[in-house]
Amino acid sequence: MQTRLLTLLVACIALAACSARPDPLPSWRDGPSKRAILEFVERTTDAKGDAFIPPEERIAVLDNDGTLWAEQPAYFHLIYEIDRLVGLAEPAPAWASDEPYASILAAARSGGRPAALAATLNGGRDAIAKVVAVTHAGLTPDEFAVEAKRWLATARHPERGERLFDLAYRPMLEVLDLLRANGFRPHIVSGGGIDFVRALADDRYGIPPERVIGSTGGLRLERQGDLVSLVKTPEIVFIDDGDGKPIAIERTIGRRPVIAFGNSDGDLAMLEWTSSGSGPSLCVLIHHTDAVREWAYDRGSPVGRLDLGLDEAGRRGWTVVDMARDWDTVFVPAAR
Amino acid sequence: MQTRLLTLLVACIALAACSARPDPLPSWRDGPSKRAILEFVERTTDAKGDAFIPPEERIAVLDNDGTLWAEQPAYFHLIYEIDRLVGLAEPAPAWASDEPYASILAAARSGGRPAALAATLNGGRDAIAKVVAVTHAGLTPDEFAVEAKRWLATARHPERGERLFDLAYRPMLEVLDLLRANGFRPHIVSGGGIDFVRALADDRYGIPPERVIGSTGGLRLERQGDLVSLVKTPEIVFIDDGDGKPIAIERTIGRRPVIAFGNSDGDLAMLEWTSSGSGPSLCVLIHHTDAVREWAYDRGSPVGRLDLGLDEAGRRGWTVVDMARDWDTVFVPAAR
Repeated sequence: MQTRLLTLLVACIALAACSARPDPLPSWRDGPSKRAILEFVERTTDAKGDAFIPPEERIAVLDNDGTLWAEQPAYFHLIYEIDRLVGLAEPAPAWASDEPYASILAAARSGGRPAALAATLNGGRDAIAKVVAVTHAGLTPDEFAVEAKRWLATARHPERGERLFDLAYRPMLEVLDLLRANGFRPHIVSGGGIDFVRALADDRYGIPPERVIGSTGGLRLERQGDLVSLVKTPEIVFIDDGDGKPIAIERTIGRRPVIAFGNSDGDLAMLEWTSSGSGPSLCVLIHHTDAVREWAYDRGSPVGRLDLGLDEAGRRGWTVVDMARDWDTVFVPAAR
Repeated sequence: MQTRLLTLLVACIALAACSARPDPLPSWRDGPSKRAILEFVERTTDAKGDAFIPPEERIAVLDNDGTLWAEQPAYFHLIYEIDRLVGLAEPAPAWASDEPYASILAAARSGGRPAALAATLNGGRDAIAKVVAVTHAGLTPDEFAVEAKRWLATARHPERGERLFDLAYRPMLEVLDLLRANGFRPHIVSGGGIDFVRALADDRYGIPPERVIGSTGGLRLERQGDLVSLVKTPEIVFIDDGDGKPIAIERTIGRRPVIAFGNSDGDLAMLEWTSSGSGPSLCVLIHHTDAVREWAYDRGSPVGRLDLGLDEAGRRGWTVVDMARDWDTVFVPAAR
């Protein structure tokens, strides 16, 4: 009798221990994607296994737009730029005749934000660069962060109406937590402007500024009496996209990552470089397949095109997350 | 009697507790420099004091040449370049007529390494850039690190004969340990090449590659079958000196440091920016005053010139370390 009681007690303790270890990825449905992520983390943190990765080498890199939060119908950083430009327009009457500002502002007056966005995209890379120049130049990075955070607190999606800040992917926040809990250091490697992504990353993802890599504009030193500050200049210095991503990672971190998450062909070089390391690596592509809860797009999309990457992922055995199939919940719960 | 015994016991315990907390800067002589460093760390880590700095903001930046190790008669990275060039020279007979290689190699043949060094310095910035181009280009950063580490293991000082690796400053290694023990994150911000300083920093200072900022050359992606690697190119992309230092810190770390150590006018902008923060900051200049144990140089030196910096330090109340007066020991103990 005493033995049976003891057995029962042991069983209870074992059960309690199991239920005390909750699923670290509750928004992920069981399937190959979830299993690939969990198994990689387990294998590479098992000090006795042959796939063990020492803590100092546990570098994870994650794209932002389309990987950590939504990116349709246009990168949210670009929506910020348009909103800022329209907000700034009053004190710059010269823009009434300067392009691309004149066209964008005229579009904003007649068709609101969606029309202004379309006019900017119509102008291509040059128009975007010119908008970025006037919305950044003259601000310190701290002043810029204040502006961007203020905007992020209220800006809403042009089609859906939710706060953009709430369009981060809950399954990916769980991945970030899982990585941190296992000694991996997640870095964001974004094509977006570094100061914009930094303004977002700390509050939204718990990722501090020193773990954010992005596209960069110029900076210059400004001296006022004894006070020295850095001020943003209009030039675009570095575009953190394509081959630029592994280059920026090497220059900033100085180690090849062992985990890479992306969602577009702009992330392909980063994933290829990660998977070319000598040890184990995990490469994941988020495939936007969910036209109901999010958007469905890949090979033909002007924003976040995923074409070569899909082929490479198949060939190399990377994990392709099927958003409609793999994610039980898509977005974070909205703040009240 | 029992009370006196108890008192004695308490006194013994107190004494043991005190002696169990050894001086964290034993190579520093008591004086204003040592006190300034210790007091700053104590004040800013006291959660109840009004100078408290939260752990995430405890960023320290330190120059390398002349601040963490010696830099006379020429930056050791430059000595590496010369040694590499002479070592590489065999397979490149075209250099017999190409400048600056021809002059440097001829000087090396007639007067050895000191003559080659002088010939390179004579050629100025252009000559140095051309030497750097051929000693870096075509290597991956990992291959470069292997070369640099191999050289660092044995290369000796042209005048003193010690291993260059042993010409790091013991008092500064103690400062690095003190900072880390108090939650500060030391970053090296060097004018030297980032890959060279990274090859040195981990073994010598315990500073990992992601905490090293330096001058950078180009990188390009190379694809061989499915393997992607980054390869160094001949171009110099960024010189991490003067105003470049605060700019690179902002771009890499995204926070203004609270502690800065330097030794030359090339560090001045970094110190000015650090001391312009809204909270407490510690700015320290290492003044090379010890012609007996190290070198004595400042305003007139072509290497590590400290001129404007000395004036600014006096005016702004920065800490100026008088090496001869403040340091009890200068160099780390040599490895056997």
